[in-house]
Formats: sequence, C-alpha cells, structure tokens
Amino acid sequence: MTTQIGIVGVTGYAGQELLRILSRHPHVSVSYLASRRLKSPAEFQGRKIHPFDAKEAASACELLFLALPHGEAMKLAPALLKNPAMRIIDFSGDFRLKSTAVFRKAYGLAHTASSWLPKAVYGLPELNREKIPGSRLVANPGCYPTATLLGLAPLARERLLASGGVIVDAKSGVTGAGRSIKEEMIFCEVNEDFRAYKVDRHQHLPEMEQELGRLAGRKVAMTFVPHLAPMDRGLYATLYVTLAKRISETAFRSLYEQQYKEEPFIRILPKGSWPRVKSVAGTNRCEIGLHLDPSGKKAVILSAIDNLGKGAAGQAVQNMNLLLSLPETEGL
Amino acid sequence: MTTQIGIVGVTGYAGQELLRILSRHPHVSVSYLASRRLKSPAEFQGRKIHPFDAKEAASACELLFLALPHGEAMKLAPALLKNPAMRIIDFSGDFRLKSTAVFRKAYGLAHTASSWLPKAVYGLPELNREKIPGSRLVANPGCYPTATLLGLAPLARERLLASGGVIVDAKSGVTGAGRSIKEEMIFCEVNEDFRAYKVDRHQHLPEMEQELGRLAGRKVAMTFVPHLAPMDRGLYATLYVTLAKRISETAFRSLYEQQYKEEPFIRILPKGSWPRVKSVAGTNRCEIGLHLDPSGKKAVILSAIDNLGKGAAGQAVQNMNLLLSLPETEGL
Amino acid sequence: MTTQIGIVGVTGYAGQELLRILSRHPHVSVSYLASRRLKSPAEFQGRKIHPFDAKEAASACELLFLALPHGEAMKLAPALLKNPAMRIIDFSGDFRLKSTAVFRKAYGLAHTASSWLPKAVYGLPELNREKIPGSRLVANPGCYPTATLLGLAPLARERLLASGGVIVDAKSGVTGAGRSIKEEMIFCEVNEDFRAYKVDRHQHLPEMEQELGRLAGRKVAMTFVPHLAPMDRGLYATLYVTLAKRISETAFRSLYEQQYKEEPFIRILPKGSWPRVKSVAGTNRCEIGLHLDPSGKKAVILSAIDNLGKGAAGQAVQNMNLLLSLPETEGL
Amino acid sequence: MTTQIGIVGVTGYAGQELLRILSRHPHVSVSYLASRRLKSPAEFQGRKIHPFDAKEAASACELLFLALPHGEAMKLAPALLKNPAMRIIDFSGDFRLKSTAVFRKAYGLAHTASSWLPKAVYGLPELNREKIPGSRLVANPGCYPTATLLGLAPLARERLLASGGVIVDAKSGVTGAGRSIKEEMIFCEVNEDFRAYKVDRHQHLPEMEQELGRLAGRKVAMTFVPHLAPMDRGLYATLYVTLAKRISETAFRSLYEQQYKEEPFIRILPKGSWPRVKSVAGTNRCEIGLHLDPSGKKAVILSAIDNLGKGAAGQAVQNMNLLLSLPETEGL
Repeated sequence: MTTQIGIVGVTGYAGQELLRILSRHPHVSVSYLASRRLKSPAEFQGRKIHPFDAKEAASACELLFLALPHGEAMKLAPALLKNPAMRIIDFSGDFRLKSTAVFRKAYGLAHTASSWLPKAVYGLPELNREKIPGSRLVANPGCYPTATLLGLAPLARERLLASGGVIVDAKSGVTGAGRSIKEEMIFCEVNEDFRAYKVDRHQHLPEMEQELGRLAGRKVAMTFVPHLAPMDRGLYATLYVTLAKRISETAFRSLYEQQYKEEPFIRILPKGSWPRVKSVAGTNRCEIGLHLDPSGKKAVILSAIDNLGKGAAGQAVQNMNLLLSLPETEGL
Repeated sequence: MTTQIGIVGVTGYAGQELLRILSRHPHVSVSYLASRRLKSPAEFQGRKIHPFDAKEAASACELLFLALPHGEAMKLAPALLKNPAMRIIDFSGDFRLKSTAVFRKAYGLAHTASSWLPKAVYGLPELNREKIPGSRLVANPGCYPTATLLGLAPLARERLLASGGVIVDAKSGVTGAGRSIKEEMIFCEVNEDFRAYKVDRHQHLPEMEQELGRLAGRKVAMTFVPHLAPMDRGLYATLYVTLAKRISETAFRSLYEQQYKEEPFIRILPKGSWPRVKSVAGTNRCEIGLHLDPSGKKAVILSAIDNLGKGAAGQAVQNMNLLLSLPETEGL
Repeated sequence: MTTQIGIVGVTGYAGQELLRILSRHPHVSVSYLASRRLKSPAEFQGRKIHPFDAKEAASACELLFLALPHGEAMKLAPALLKNPAMRIIDFSGDFRLKSTAVFRKAYGLAHTASSWLPKAVYGLPELNREKIPGSRLVANPGCYPTATLLGLAPLARERLLASGGVIVDAKSGVTGAGRSIKEEMIFCEVNEDFRAYKVDRHQHLPEMEQELGRLAGRKVAMTFVPHLAPMDRGLYATLYVTLAKRISETAFRSLYEQQYKEEPFIRILPKGSWPRVKSVAGTNRCEIGLHLDPSGKKAVILSAIDNLGKGAAGQAVQNMNLLLSLPETEGL
Repeated sequence: MTTQIGIVGVTGYAGQELLRILSRHPHVSVSYLASRRLKSPAEFQGRKIHPFDAKEAASACELLFLALPHGEAMKLAPALLKNPAMRIIDFSGDFRLKSTAVFRKAYGLAHTASSWLPKAVYGLPELNREKIPGSRLVANPGCYPTATLLGLAPLARERLLASGGVIVDAKSGVTGAGRSIKEEMIFCEVNEDFRAYKVDRHQHLPEMEQELGRLAGRKVAMTFVPHLAPMDRGLYATLYVTLAKRISETAFRSLYEQQYKEEPFIRILPKGSWPRVKSVAGTNRCEIGLHLDPSGKKAVILSAIDNLGKGAAGQAVQNMNLLLSLPETEGL
C-alpha cells in the first residue's frame, strides 16, 4: 500500500533532492507537484508540475512537503491542515521556533499561524523521535542546527557544557542559499572565494539555542559564524566547547558512541579521523569526529552532513517514514 | 612622462583586470575611473570612481578605455572623439564589424555611430599591428575571435584553408559572460556543469568570419560552438581545419613558427604538447598546439588564452602601448 | 528471487558508483566485493571487502562486474568463465575491440584472452540490445564512445555520414581518469584549468571507429580530441558531421526522435536547447541536442552523459538488467 | 641599481608566485633559479633553472629565497651564510621557532643549524618591522600564523586576551599543501569536499603560540583547527576570543584602526562587513573584520589573506624590501 505524497516547491534545490529520493522510495507515490513560480501546468524532469492550489493538493495527497522560502508555509499550512487527513512536513523556519517574539526577530516577520506553533514537532529524529509519529505538522530542522545539535546533544544531555558558552564555526555549500539570484551568488563571485556572512545573527541561531537549551535543561550561550564554501553541497560544523567538568578521553568518546549506537544515520569516527563533506554528500548520514584536549576540559566536535540530505530532504524523508510507521531508513 | 588614462566600466571583470594591469604600468597614470552603475562618486579598491560624465572624462585623460556592454560605446564614443586629443580603446563589439547590416544581425541593434566604423581599427596586434599606432579608435577584439584568429591566421594567409570551412569548438571561463546576474549563472547552476550555448549563432561568429575572410582573401565558412566551463577564466579554442593541399608536418609547424617568431605573446608548443588554460591565466599570452593528421590534409590547432588577459584587458594594454609608442610588452 | 552479484575493483570511482546503484536495486544482492589493492579483508562503506580471489568470487556470486584498469580483466576472465554459471560485465577496454592488432596498438599490450573476443558482446543496449541477454561476457563501452555513438548512430544507420569523416570534440570530468595519482591530476593542477590531452590518439578512438563502422556499414574516419574539464563528473561530446545528402530540419530531427522514441534513457532536446552535464549527472540518461546548418548539409550533435553513469556504472546495470531478464530501467 | 636575487625551489607554488612578483619588481634582477628536482639545467617559464649548487648560488646573487619543504633550509643555510654578503629569506618552518625542542616536536626532526636560531628574525613586518632590515636570515612566517597573528596582535599587545585561551578556526586553499602528490590531494578527492585535518596538532600551532606569547607577554593557550577548502588560494582565519575585560564597540574597533593605521597591507573592514578570500587573492593584503558581542566580553575577528601572497611570496618580497631599504610596498 502506497501513500500519496505531494511536494510544493519542487523546483528548488531541496525540492529536487526530495523528488529524487521519493522517486525510488518503495512505499510512497508522488501524486502532486507544485511550484509557486508557475502560472500554468508545466513539465519538470518528466513529470507534470502545477501552480499551487490548496484544493488540488488536498485531494491529490495525504502528506505534503512544503519546500518554500521562509514566511510561505505559515500562510498555507493552517488551511491545508483543516483537512484532518492531511499531514505536513515543512522545510522552512516557520514552525521551528516556539516563541513568536523570537520568530519575529529572527525572520523579520510577524507570525500568522501561531496557534500551530505548540502543535508543530521539531523533526530531528535522533533527538525527538518519540514525538514525530503522531504529529500532523513536522518542522524539518535547518541544516546548521541539524549538524550542530547532533554534535552537541550528547554533552548537553549529560549537563557537560560549561556555562561560558559554545562556539559554532560552520561552513556551508552554496545550495544552502537556495536558488537565490543575487550578484554575490553568481559563479565568479563564489568560485575561488571563501567568506563569512551574517556573523552571529543568522536566523538559525535562535533555533539552535532553543533546542540546545531544551536538551541541556538551561540556556546555553552560542556564538555562531556561518561561512560560504565554494562547493554545491555540504555542511561542516566545527564546534568548540568548554566542559563543565574534567572528563577522560574514554568517557568522552563513549558518551557519543553510547548515545548514538542505535542510530543508523550517525557515524562516530575513530580517534584521529575527521569528517569529510564528500563522505556524506548524497546521503542522509551525519559523520562526527571527536577531539578532547589533554586537559580534559576542552573539546572540539566536528560534524558533517549534506545540507540537502540530512540537512533538508533526507531528514524530511526520515520524518515521513516515522509518520507513516515505515522503517526509518526506507528509501534513504 | 606619463599619459593620463581613464576607464569607463571599471567595476566589471574586464575593467578590474585592466585597472590591475595599469596600476603597475610604468608609463601611465590612471586619472579617471567611472561606472555607469553609480549615482554619485564612490570608492573602489582604494580609488575614487565616478558616475560617467563625458566632460569630466575629456578633461581628466587623453586615452579612455570603454569596458561596457555592447551598444553603449557607440553612444559615447562620437562625442568623446570630437576632442581631437582623445583616443579610445573599446572593449565591446560596437566598432569591430565593418558592416552595419552584419552588426544589426549580430547584436540586434541599429548602429548609431556608423561613420566611425571605417575609421575604427581592429586591435589584434599580431595580425593588424601597423594600423594601430595612428588610430583614434581601437576596437579591442572579442575573446573567442582572438584565440581563433591567432590559431588560424598562419593557414589563412597562406591560402591553406580548404573551401569546406573551419570548425571552432571553443570553451570559455565564466568571466566571459561578464557580471550577468541570471539564474543560469548562479554558482550552483555552473559549478559541476558543462554546456554549449548559442550554438552557431554567437555574436562573435561574424567578427571571426570578417577577419578570417580578410586574412584569407576570401570568405571562409565557419561553424562555431561556444561552451561554458566551470572556471573563472580561460578561453580554449579547438580548431578543426581541412587543408587546401597536402602539407608535411615540418612545413606545417614551420609556418606557425615563422609567422610568430617575433611575437612576444605567442608561444608555439612543441609537438605532442597541448595548451593549458592554467599556463596562460593572468597573462597576455596565447599558447598554440599543433596536430597534423598523417594524411597531411587535416589539422587540429589548439589555442588558449586568458579571456580577461589576451582576450580583453591584456590585449587592450598591448594596443595602448602601440598607440603611445611604448614597447609593446610594457606592463604586461 | 535475487541474484548474487560481485564487484571486483569496488574502491575505484566507477566501482563505488556501481555499488551505490546496486545497493538499492530490488532484485540483486551484493555478495562479494573485492579490491586488488588489499592484502587482507577490510571494511569499505560499511561492507566487507576482500583481496580478489577467483574461487571465492566464483562461489559467492553468479554475476561479476570487473571494474579494473585496462589489461587486468583479460587475465581474470577466462578462468572465471570456466564456471558455466558465471557471467561477467567488464568495465575495461579488454573485450571491446574485435581485432587483437587494434587492441595492441590502442593499449600497448598483447591480448592474452583473444579466444573470448568473438564471444564478448559490446554492451551498448540502445545499439546492440538483442545480443546482450544470452551473453556471458559483456564489454561495457567506454564513456567517450557511449556519448559519441549514441549521438551518431541515427545518421550512421541511415548512411547519412559523408565520406570526409566525423569530428568528435569531447570534454570529460576528472573521475574519467580514475583514481590516478599523478602530479597533473592533483587539485591545483586541474582546478581552474582546461586542457586537451592525447589529441587524436586516445585509446577510445579505435573503439568508436569499430562500432561506428559497424553501424554505417563502412569505415568512417574520425578525428577525436578529448579534453579535461574541472569537474568531478560528466562527459560532453560535440560532434561535427558533414551529411552525405541534403536533409531538411524536420527530417533530421525526426530521424533521432524515431530511432530513440522507445529508449527510456535517451532524451532528444527540443530545437534550440542544448544538453547540460548537470541534467544528466547521477543518472543513466543521455541528452542529445541537434543543430542543422541552414544548408542542410552540415550538422552539430551535442551529447551529454555522466561518465560514471551511462558512461560506466549505470550502463553496466542496464546491461545486467538485460542479462537477468529484468526491466531495463530497474534500479536506475 | 638592482640587486641580484636567487630563488631555490622556484617550481613550487610559492616559488612560482615569488618569481611572478619579482619579475616586475623595479629594483631587483632575478639572476639565479634552482630546483632540487632537477638533474641538469632546464627551462621554466622562459628562464633557465638549475640543479641547486651552493657555489653557483653564492656567486650569482646577494639575496636568496629558499622555498623548500621543511627540513631543507637548515641543511643549506649555514654554508650559504658563511659568505658575509649573502642574505636569506626562508619560506619554511626551519628558522621560525626559537626552541629546538619545540621544533623537534612540531616537525619530527632534530634541528641541524640551531646556532642560527637566535639570529634568525621572524619576518612578520607589521609586528616585527624594526628587526628585519639588519638581519641576514629572515624566517618568513607560515600562512596560518600570518593571518592569525595579524588578527590577534592588537588585543594581545593591550593584554586584552583572557586567560582561557583563543580559538583559531582556519580554512586554507589547496596550494597551502604545496605540490604534494598524494591520493587525498587529487582533484576528485578535494573538489566538492571540505574537511578538517591535523586537528590541534598542526606544525603552525607552536609558531603561533610562540609569537602570540611574545606579543602578549605571557603564554596564551590556543586551540587550532585547520581545514581544507576546495579552492586554489586563500587563507581565512576565524578567531574567537574572550576578552580580559569588558570593552566598548568603539574602543575595540579603534584599537585595530589605530594599531594598523599606517600599515599599507592591512585593511580593517567597516562594521558588518566581512573579509572575502577573493578580495585578497593575488595581493599582499590582509583584510580584517571585527565583531564584538553585545556583552563586550567576547569577540570574533575574521582575517583573510592569500596563502601564496601575504602568506608566503608577497610577505617574502615585503621582507626583501625591508632588507634592501626599499619602500616596503615596492613591486607589491
């Protein structure tokens, strides 16, 4: 038995990657594809795509992925969810933050569907798995928060993050910016370049703080500098932490290995090995490397994902599998 | 004694490269920089740049480089050239074609300064050196025509091109497209891609046909397919010719070596060596590799330049040196 | 019922891509992985890989892919094929050429398994489909020949290639060179570079000549210049042909559309559209663009594939599907 | 009057860049080029290069650049410096560290010319200018230390670095690794990849600690994670510091602007602007961006250079200008 699936925003990079994954998924059928750019139906990669129409979407499918820029999902979701059979997995930041004040500050927009915020589930299965299956609205996490939270969770849960705060130095491939047509994103401005942007004011920072705070049981200060690297895909987070107490190399490594030992998509690398973007590109995997300072008080955690995989479409399919009670790795 | 120089369009890729070269040229002083994009003066790489103003330009400098998109120079040049002391080197296609009909077809524009067409000199020094020094308006050649004509001239002059025509398969780096802000030029659409464009209808085709015809003394049919390669700079032309008569390997190679033996910017590679973009990047050089079929009737000529160097700014400075009676290699 | 499959040479780029495809193929099970580099068993991408051992291979699987450098398969295949249940799909050039003299000239090696040459089938399904299912040894075509032959076959079969010959200007991504560790292949020598190599003497030229001659019913001269482009994947062939007789645009285009109308992996692009490497990367597709000169006598055909997809691993799986009487598109 | 200059190791990436700069330097003449790879004289970029011979070097030039891998300069320098007219600028790590024990630990080699260590001057002109002119042996700094020390010096000198230590998250282009021919450096292993390496054990760490300690007047702990980015050139250091006392945004920014106001190669970017590799590529400049946390207690400093420019050859020429009492910016 296959479930009827729809994608709104299928022509974006995350939407395309999602379509690629779902096309070979054994238990779903992609029955509705839409793009807000369209005025009339068109062809896309051998399939029919439509201008978005809520009624059509509702009648064509039971589960809808919204892969749209920030601010769009909150306009569409409430009407779509009136149909009690409909479930939504949203790629944007619209339903990730619990506080409308924080949302407004992060995205510069008033939230127009705030009644759904308490009901939306933050869809990072490794940290929040139990809440996803029964949910009707899954907020698929941002790419930076995914790599960062997976890298910090074992320490946060054990109350091992010192109060001084955490540093997140992250590097993203260019698909992370979406299909944005700006001078600074044309080939000759990105190729052979490397640069930081939105230093300590990226919209993913409050999302990381919210979730890390939840895991740690208290607010954890974060310094977050995102950078743009000249490659299509990949997200690399180098995380610098001061530990709340001295720990041995064995205990430190064991913490990660134990917490993630059942996780099919997380790989803790052996001592002295470091993640590579190329190893995770095109997959739903997260690779984590661990370095503990000889003092036992400072650590560096390196976490790599594919921003379109575990950072977007792959994770969305993992969430879908949970919603549909399928094996979590199906199609991934 | 230094000459006062101006650049209009200095913020484009060719304009920037020109500024870089002129900044260390011992005999000129860059006294005027303008950009049409500006509304008021601004700073650019530590220098003052201005909104273009013809009077200011005329009073500030004796020689002006116009590095603007097609169609702009023909609007500006006639007024500027009324000042008898002013000389112009134009980067665009506006003054390269002798026929207004051909111009209209190539660029989709009516020519508005056609009285200057007979007086403009096609600034490819290796093929046209004697006409440049006395000129007031030099049409700096296109990047594709430069690599192609340098590769074909020795055969054309000796009437060795068979009547069946010549094939030009050319590959360009992305700065060749200028700072064009279109979806197809954003990083993720160009990186890890390779594609042909404007197959057999690129605006440089009539320019090549005009000049090759002049060299050969008759019309030579050309098939021209330009491609975009994922790199900032470089232009690589692979030229396939049928020879009008059988020729020996020695005679073929000697033709090129003799015709170019005094040329400081042209390097004929030894047998079995092929040009590389990386060897000419950042220079005003053209590297040429030669392959003759054992039949002695078919040849492949491979010609590589930097599209911003010998294909634009480098060649413009070479032309300037000729205009100013300086050693042709000065500053290059 | 699943078939037991083995891969020898799984750590190379083509071997890895093959493993990636087979891992999600619904009707096969990868039961044997080997690498000649190994001295003892090791882990590779979460699987066990072995030093190659013919007996182990024979007992572990019914169909073996050999993804090895040229000259290796001809040493291994005869012994493996003594087992009458074993079938081999070979990625190398060892069994593609029918003439041992031509092989010796192309690869600089004496052929040591020439008795298998008449029995080996050239595995380009679109041109040779009927011969594949019953075969025991499939010679998977080279990447350059695949793109070129698919682009030229419709004209060759209709005897439309003029006697003067065909020009193949081809551009390859760097995985085409395999994992070759030479100075000229390190990142800084390839990035921001573009270059020709092996001008008119690449080992794929006799392969193309053999198969094109077979299709055309006579020898067709070819000029072949391969180039290296700074990207991981992709193969782009720009094919210049003179036609044996004048043809209309409609007839020309119809020829391609008719001959390929049932082909699931071939896409003829509409007039004025040209293939892109990015559209075929990661797929088993070939995109073909068509340009006819207004004279009706000269044409340019542009053909793009992924060198690791339709140019290697994808095509090998297509051949496997034919051998196993599975739908040809299964898993692709 | 021109000085006779030699380069040993001219075929490496730093050696080539040095030759490119010196070729247009108005006050020096490149009279000796050598490469240890050679067995007999050869041609390189239109010049004669030789197998290294100490006597030849001594007779041909007054100032020698050694652009060799670590461990080579300490073998050559003592003999060369016996000639009292000879001066050396060394690109390697051989003469940067004052302690032979630290050297041995960093490079895994016993130091064989330790008597020269106290006399060698660390050639970072912005921090050490006064010592360079009279020196006979200048240790040109590493690329990571150059970007890092320039970014941290204003705080270190003012005793503003808190005792908890400094974090250096740095990203390098691939020429930083030299022309190293290893599997992990071939194009397809680096392109579309991003990775950390030598986490907290890179040989540049003791060099940074030594010089930062000198500036700060006490040992400052550093955590240093270098990364490899898929580009030819560029070095980007993102520096995270905790301040010893609260500071205002104005005071923080003013510290940098004051200390560097006379420096021709250092540019402090305005608030909210961040360095880009592309802005410094091909130059001897360092761009620095500043971010102060609202608390006034934590700062991020972003520092970008060209690893071959200010990180190697450009800085070496700046040092040469100081040695020769030329204007410091000459030829740069």
